[in-house]
Parts: sequence; structure tokens; C-alpha cells
Amino acid sequence: MTTNEVANKLVAYCREGKYKEAYDLYAEDAISIEMEGAPGEQITKGKENIWNAYQQWEESIEEIHGGAVGNPVVAANHFVVPMSMDATFKEQGRWAFDELCMYEVADGKIKKAQYFYEVPEMG
Amino acid sequence: MTTNEVANKLVAYCREGKYKEAYDLYAEDAISIEMEGAPGEQITKGKENIWNAYQQWEESIEEIHGGAVGNPVVAANHFVVPMSMDATFKEQGRWAFDELCMYEVADGKIKKAQYFYEVPEMG
Repeated sequence: MTTNEVANKLVAYCREGKYKEAYDLYAEDAISIEMEGAPGEQITKGKENIWNAYQQWEESIEEIHGGAVGNPVVAANHFVVPMSMDATFKEQGRWAFDELCMYEVADGKIKKAQYFYEVPEMG
Repeated sequence: MTTNEVANKLVAYCREGKYKEAYDLYAEDAISIEMEGAPGEQITKGKENIWNAYQQWEESIEEIHGGAVGNPVVAANHFVVPMSMDATFKEQGRWAFDELCMYEVADGKIKKAQYFYEVPEMG
């Protein structure tokens, strides 16, 4: 798949809530990078660990109030997708945020994901 | 300035070729990050060093054949701008590339720039 095709598939799966399929676009040795200073691990290595981290994050959510997955912007072997979410988390309470999700593609798979957002101040 | 205002100013300056003004949007202690494996320093710290690195890069160019600065996509304290360039470099020859330029804003200044592009294979 081209970068464009991976981008369109990822966006379609996220919009449909098909997260397992979305993470199946990742390479086995993919890495995922959160913002420095955010709660949890900053760097997660390996598709299975990334999927487990996603599931753990999903379990921390009490209620989703809204959210959107924007259109991808593609440049060579990278694409970026604006996403937003408004959710109440079991421990931290409600958090509404916008983020830019950057993906690097190699051999038709996502080899690197990096998320850019405002790190919330912890109480 | 809001993130949106910084984004619009940066894009306008880049389109007009006003690079000194563009780099004046950076904070004194800003950092700039290139792709791992790209030629030159991967991380440059400080507005003056970043400006000097830009000037050095500009001097390495023999001829610019084309290029474009896309529209910014803003999310909270970040924005991303797609850019493309086709140039002949004095040492490396012609290189046409697309990149996604990610910026983090704090207190109305760019505190971090990170560039995402396909690292060229060196001959």
C-alpha cells in the first residue's frame, strides 16, 4: 500500500471505531511516541505492546462525549491526521483535547506513530 | 499570539520568502529537530543556532526549481504545515521532497519545530 492508501484506511477504521483493524496497519516492530511529560510510557515498541497500551487506555475511559477524526495530509512517506476527543476518564475526570497524529510508513505499514497535544497539568 | 495566529504568520512569511521574520517567531530557547539519519545535526537548540543552521542550509543550495507552502492544520498548542521543495544542492545534486513541519507553540512563540520527511539515501 502507498502512504496515501494507509492514511485513508487508518482514517476510515478510526471513524468506524474499528481499532483492531487500525492497529493491524502497524508493522510488527512499530514504535509509538507520546508527548514528554504525559502520563504513561512515552515510547511503546512493538505492534502487540502498542495494541495492549491502546486497550488499557480505552479501559481507563468512563464515557466518551464526542470526538472527530479529520482528513489526512500526506507528504511522501508520512501523513498527519488531526483528531479530537472529549471524554471522562475513570481516574482523571473529563478531558477534551485536540491532537495531531503523525505517522511514518514503510513497506505499506505504519512503522512510527507520534502524537502531538497539550500535556494536561496533573492535579 | 494564539497558535492559529503564529501558524498564519509563519505560513505567510515562508510564502513571501521572509525567512528572518519567520525565525523571529521562535522562542530564544526553541529547539529544532530533523529526521534521524538525515545529514547535519539532528537537534539544534536556541533561536540563533536555528537561524544560523537555516542560513547554512540556504547557502548549500545552487538553484531552487520549485516549492510550495501548504495550509496549516492547528490543534491546541500545535500546528503542522505541509511543504515541498525541488532544488539543486551544490554538493548533493537535485533533490525534490515533500515534508510535514510540526510546530509547538508556548506563550505566543514557536518552542519546538520537528520535520518529517523521507531521508534521502546518500550516494
